Amino acid sequence: MRVLSGVQPSGRLHIGNYFGAIRQFVELQQDPANECFYFIANLHAMTTVHDGKTLRENTQMLAVDFLALGLDPKRSVLYRQSDIPEVTELSWLLSTVTPMGLLQRCHSYKDKVSKGISPNHGLFAYPVLMAADILIVRADKVPVGKDQKQHLEVTRDVAAAFNHEYGEEVLKLPEEMILPEVAVVPGIDGRKMSKSYGNTLDIFAPEAELKKRVMSIVTDSTPVEEPKPTRGNTLYHLLKLFTPKQEWPEVRKWFTQGGTGYGKMKQHLLGLILDYFKEARARREELMRDLGYVERVLQEGAERAHAVVAEVMADCRRVCGLR
Amino acid sequence: MRVLSGVQPSGRLHIGNYFGAIRQFVELQQDPANECFYFIANLHAMTTVHDGKTLRENTQMLAVDFLALGLDPKRSVLYRQSDIPEVTELSWLLSTVTPMGLLQRCHSYKDKVSKGISPNHGLFAYPVLMAADILIVRADKVPVGKDQKQHLEVTRDVAAAFNHEYGEEVLKLPEEMILPEVAVVPGIDGRKMSKSYGNTLDIFAPEAELKKRVMSIVTDSTPVEEPKPTRGNTLYHLLKLFTPKQEWPEVRKWFTQGGTGYGKMKQHLLGLILDYFKEARARREELMRDLGYVERVLQEGAERAHAVVAEVMADCRRVCGLR
Repeated sequence: MRVLSGVQPSGRLHIGNYFGAIRQFVELQQDPANECFYFIANLHAMTTVHDGKTLRENTQMLAVDFLALGLDPKRSVLYRQSDIPEVTELSWLLSTVTPMGLLQRCHSYKDKVSKGISPNHGLFAYPVLMAADILIVRADKVPVGKDQKQHLEVTRDVAAAFNHEYGEEVLKLPEEMILPEVAVVPGIDGRKMSKSYGNTLDIFAPEAELKKRVMSIVTDSTPVEEPKPTRGNTLYHLLKLFTPKQEWPEVRKWFTQGGTGYGKMKQHLLGLILDYFKEARARREELMRDLGYVERVLQEGAERAHAVVAEVMADCRRVCGLR
Repeated sequence: MRVLSGVQPSGRLHIGNYFGAIRQFVELQQDPANECFYFIANLHAMTTVHDGKTLRENTQMLAVDFLALGLDPKRSVLYRQSDIPEVTELSWLLSTVTPMGLLQRCHSYKDKVSKGISPNHGLFAYPVLMAADILIVRADKVPVGKDQKQHLEVTRDVAAAFNHEYGEEVLKLPEEMILPEVAVVPGIDGRKMSKSYGNTLDIFAPEAELKKRVMSIVTDSTPVEEPKPTRGNTLYHLLKLFTPKQEWPEVRKWFTQGGTGYGKMKQHLLGLILDYFKEARARREELMRDLGYVERVLQEGAERAHAVVAEVMADCRRVCGLR
């Protein structure tokens, strides 16, 4: 079963990214029944990033982070979207069978417009390029979060329209893969952790910076000796996320019984986070000293993806009468 | 000066196509100061043609017709749009700097919607792909008819936006080339000759078919002996188009003095048309017996275009941070 997913290179990965997607990606590759394709969606990122240096660096850093966090290039195919320029070609072919209404109804575009973002055509055409990303590798399953569900439906609609128009089952309709329910990871201000809120804990931030961020997690003013609320308590949720199961009853008591101050809890959380990502942080240091290796991984990934892509594109061009 | 133009492969060329564009293309290549790039816009044709066999045949036939009508592959670069798939990649890069409003204001799209055509995204995105076609070969001049004027403005706007966003003059802003005024060629029903009206005289139609079409040119019921009207008289305009200058005063008298029936005039017109395209028709016969040659011309054209394209794309990818 071929699994595909892409992540936009939008800067440093945070804990929300990890528990929301990366961890699942790493787990999926453990099952030998899965053939995992993961790509760095740098073409998609261009809908918002118009700075070459930033995009190039973010792309490279995301590759480093992926590898540091356990993505195994022997098991998974990791590639840069732009190294498969055929996705833009397929995107055009798909555009000619994509009704405008389908795109006009996409929430993510409508949301951006309603937020007053002056949209460029890339934002509007985004779901078509995403469809091409998926269809060009004949993915069976696509892990989707709630906000990507509609885009996968668009992908299926467009693939079906293409097959119908050309009277041949050239494109494989992908299915969605519901990832095991993930608790929303709160950011240091209590809202959902998100780069756009500026409330993240970045996985690979320098220790001093991470400490500062953890120490600034919002808390209430419950006195040390009193029990602390758990519901909606950011610190409680983060501690729960990182505390090994067997230790949880003990840590939980800090809240239910009182006597432990938030400061001490934050110190403990910092330790847990550093411990959780200890191996990844060490691996990242190594990778940063050998960026040539990272580049080779990406190039080899592109080559492996290309073996599938060439076949799909040959079929598409044939039925469309381009060759 | 590099000149670029593309023609959609939409079936057999008619006399209106010839006098409206192809003749000018052939003339432009005579001037050694011009480096002419002409492409067969098969990717654009996909916005309306969803049949592989038809598109493949139309593409090949347009190449044959181009060559038959005097396009010289030694002087001009003739290529299939789809053989430069990088145009779709550039089209994506441009999309991310193209405001939606710019495309929403395009007449050709608005016209189609107002005619009740259910638009696909390809029709909407058409001006961006057209911009990529032009910018990817760093064209200096683009011959434009009235209906393409706005699209060239879009091309300039998009190129300027890209250069501005990335702070480098990567894309060359093309200028429009106003072609010498061409009289509108009337079709056999008196309206502008157009495939969509079904009123064409096809340049390479078999003689018997062409005869039938010429004979069915609409005329009024002026008796043979009387003078015929000239204004709005299709036959008059077509005769004027094909009659050598020195013979025109004589032919004109058929209208002003009476005594000559429309039937005789049509016979004469048929002879003129066959004569005008005699060489082209003979060359076409030859080319049809050597389609391998036609294919080689297209492939060589693509290679020559590619020399420029590779350079432009390398610049674009660099400033965008894709490599």
